Amino acid sequence: MSERVYTREQVTLEAVARHARVSRQTISNALNAPHRLAPDTLARAKQAIDSLGYRPNQAARSLRTSSSQLIGFRIEPTRDGINGAVLDRFLHALCEAADRHGYNVLLFAAADDAKEIEGYDDLLRRRAVDGFALAGTHPGDARTAWLAERGLPFITFGRPWGERRASHAWVDVDGAAGTAAAVDHLVEQGHRRIAFLGWPAGSGVGDDRHSGWLRAVRAHQLPTRGLAARGEDGVTTGHALATRLFQQSSPPTGLVCASDSLALGAMGAVTDRGLAAGEDVGVVGFDDTPVAVAVSPGLSSVRQPVEQAAVTLVELLAERLADATVAPAEKLIAPDLIVRPSSTRSTPSLVPSS
Amino acid sequence: MSERVYTREQVTLEAVARHARVSRQTISNALNAPHRLAPDTLARAKQAIDSLGYRPNQAARSLRTSSSQLIGFRIEPTRDGINGAVLDRFLHALCEAADRHGYNVLLFAAADDAKEIEGYDDLLRRRAVDGFALAGTHPGDARTAWLAERGLPFITFGRPWGERRASHAWVDVDGAAGTAAAVDHLVEQGHRRIAFLGWPAGSGVGDDRHSGWLRAVRAHQLPTRGLAARGEDGVTTGHALATRLFQQSSPPTGLVCASDSLALGAMGAVTDRGLAAGEDVGVVGFDDTPVAVAVSPGLSSVRQPVEQAAVTLVELLAERLADATVAPAEKLIAPDLIVRPSSTRSTPSLVPSS
Repeated sequence: MSERVYTREQVTLEAVARHARVSRQTISNALNAPHRLAPDTLARAKQAIDSLGYRPNQAARSLRTSSSQLIGFRIEPTRDGINGAVLDRFLHALCEAADRHGYNVLLFAAADDAKEIEGYDDLLRRRAVDGFALAGTHPGDARTAWLAERGLPFITFGRPWGERRASHAWVDVDGAAGTAAAVDHLVEQGHRRIAFLGWPAGSGVGDDRHSGWLRAVRAHQLPTRGLAARGEDGVTTGHALATRLFQQSSPPTGLVCASDSLALGAMGAVTDRGLAAGEDVGVVGFDDTPVAVAVSPGLSSVRQPVEQAAVTLVELLAERLADATVAPAEKLIAPDLIVRPSSTRSTPSLVPSS
Repeated sequence: MSERVYTREQVTLEAVARHARVSRQTISNALNAPHRLAPDTLARAKQAIDSLGYRPNQAARSLRTSSSQLIGFRIEPTRDGINGAVLDRFLHALCEAADRHGYNVLLFAAADDAKEIEGYDDLLRRRAVDGFALAGTHPGDARTAWLAERGLPFITFGRPWGERRASHAWVDVDGAAGTAAAVDHLVEQGHRRIAFLGWPAGSGVGDDRHSGWLRAVRAHQLPTRGLAARGEDGVTTGHALATRLFQQSSPPTGLVCASDSLALGAMGAVTDRGLAAGEDVGVVGFDDTPVAVAVSPGLSSVRQPVEQAAVTLVELLAERLADATVAPAEKLIAPDLIVRPSSTRSTPSLVPSS
């Protein structure tokens, strides 16, 4: 058999109309304006559409309705594999959420933001997508500025960092609430010197996670001075930052980390000092990557509800596509702290605080 | 600004023809049949196309050429996160390879094979894609049978398991070569009783990895009896299988595992016996997931070159789309063994074999 089987067997509007003994316009109305038909006519038309398996040709329909039923999403180059995991989870969730709204996801590769904008431009000129989902927003984001200027339909997974008034609709996870919850949990475990391991200032996401730690530590009236250590993300950095913190005259016994990579390095530094993560030093990571479950002891971590984020994003985008005048929504979702042995003491209340 | 900017500013064929002072047919030829034009006419037409930024409307072009420039790919529901990582790596690589051939990837969600076939049917009826990439082939695969029967253009990442003669083109990684390399490596480290931890028989991929172990162990004239342990994939299973193997009167000192999950559980079982992974028992996993790098000691693992697989798959698909009569190709790619401390002895030659 040849691949042309689909072309040959393509059910036409005419065939459906003949089968239902109605006009082509009636079949078209049944599909696009059912309220125009009497109930029994609509039922007959629908029965014929279903029994012949008719679907309007997508290309012809795109021309007429300007709808491709596709959401464009740029896929980043593969990263170290630890921190890329959360974006991969988001992508799976995005496809499933899109499916429930009758959309598919058009994925395109781009090495950086400039290439991503070129990709948007190309897809729009070809009318290949109806709208966009974006991830990884950051201060001075040229991509969102480009799309917003043109009034194009898009929703970001990530806030418009550094903008006084949001220029677009967004969904995000409350990272500060996550690190604050990690601090509260470590305090409950009896820790009194709780440090933060994070990225250099200016990254939006990183600053947010830092602010949650700062807010919570202050709320507990605990020290903060000299307890925020920062460096580029990675296991090696986590090890170096924790080692430096441990060299202080009164070292921290709690470590809240902006990523599982940093936390993993920090756990290594704990072991190197002959201490036990959990019993001696409480360590909490961020993003609950597969590594957090796999390491021993298991790593406590802040989990982003990316499924909920994806569902909300697609709902907002579908709304926006149906009505261009809808006000840009802003949705902040609370994360979950997953507690594992790396931050748990066997008898928390009996352990003296340092 | 409204989103209609793209509609209003859409550059028409007429505008480009006017700008180049040629006919519309000439511009159309420049795009679709450049060999029909004299070099200077072609140059003038191209210059006008570029300077006005003209792109033929994708929907109109689809109707004419039946080409959407999209490759359909089904994304599986998120898995445990350890073994899902290799398919996520493949997806990134697929998008990048597709991009170099002028294609994007249309992702759709499906919970199982039957839903995946429904997805294919729907996309084909809507003419939304030009062809398909499939992953996760297995014996009695209804999806490939469905596509092959209809003569549709698709390439699988994975062999047609259990078929005497391949019914379609495929790209795959030689899993047996990977487990055989793991055995050779463990033998070099001084091990003489080398076990296999894998999945229940019948999974295609799992049987292939088992066969590589069996072949290599036999080639070294080492024992195999009672040394193949099988169970459902997972860390817990790996722990249970290794524990059982260690209870033998002469337990294995080398463990070749069909996945990093199994290997991770096996490493736990090694530690539980007061032994050291690497020095006492050599452990090798499969898929080189992020977890393999993160655990301590680092886990040796067989790495699938998914980037190479994706590039080859897209090349084969592009070839097939250009010429439906091309013979189905079969490409088997050798994997790489990544050696880490979990299978390395400090002085391999001095360690007596058990």
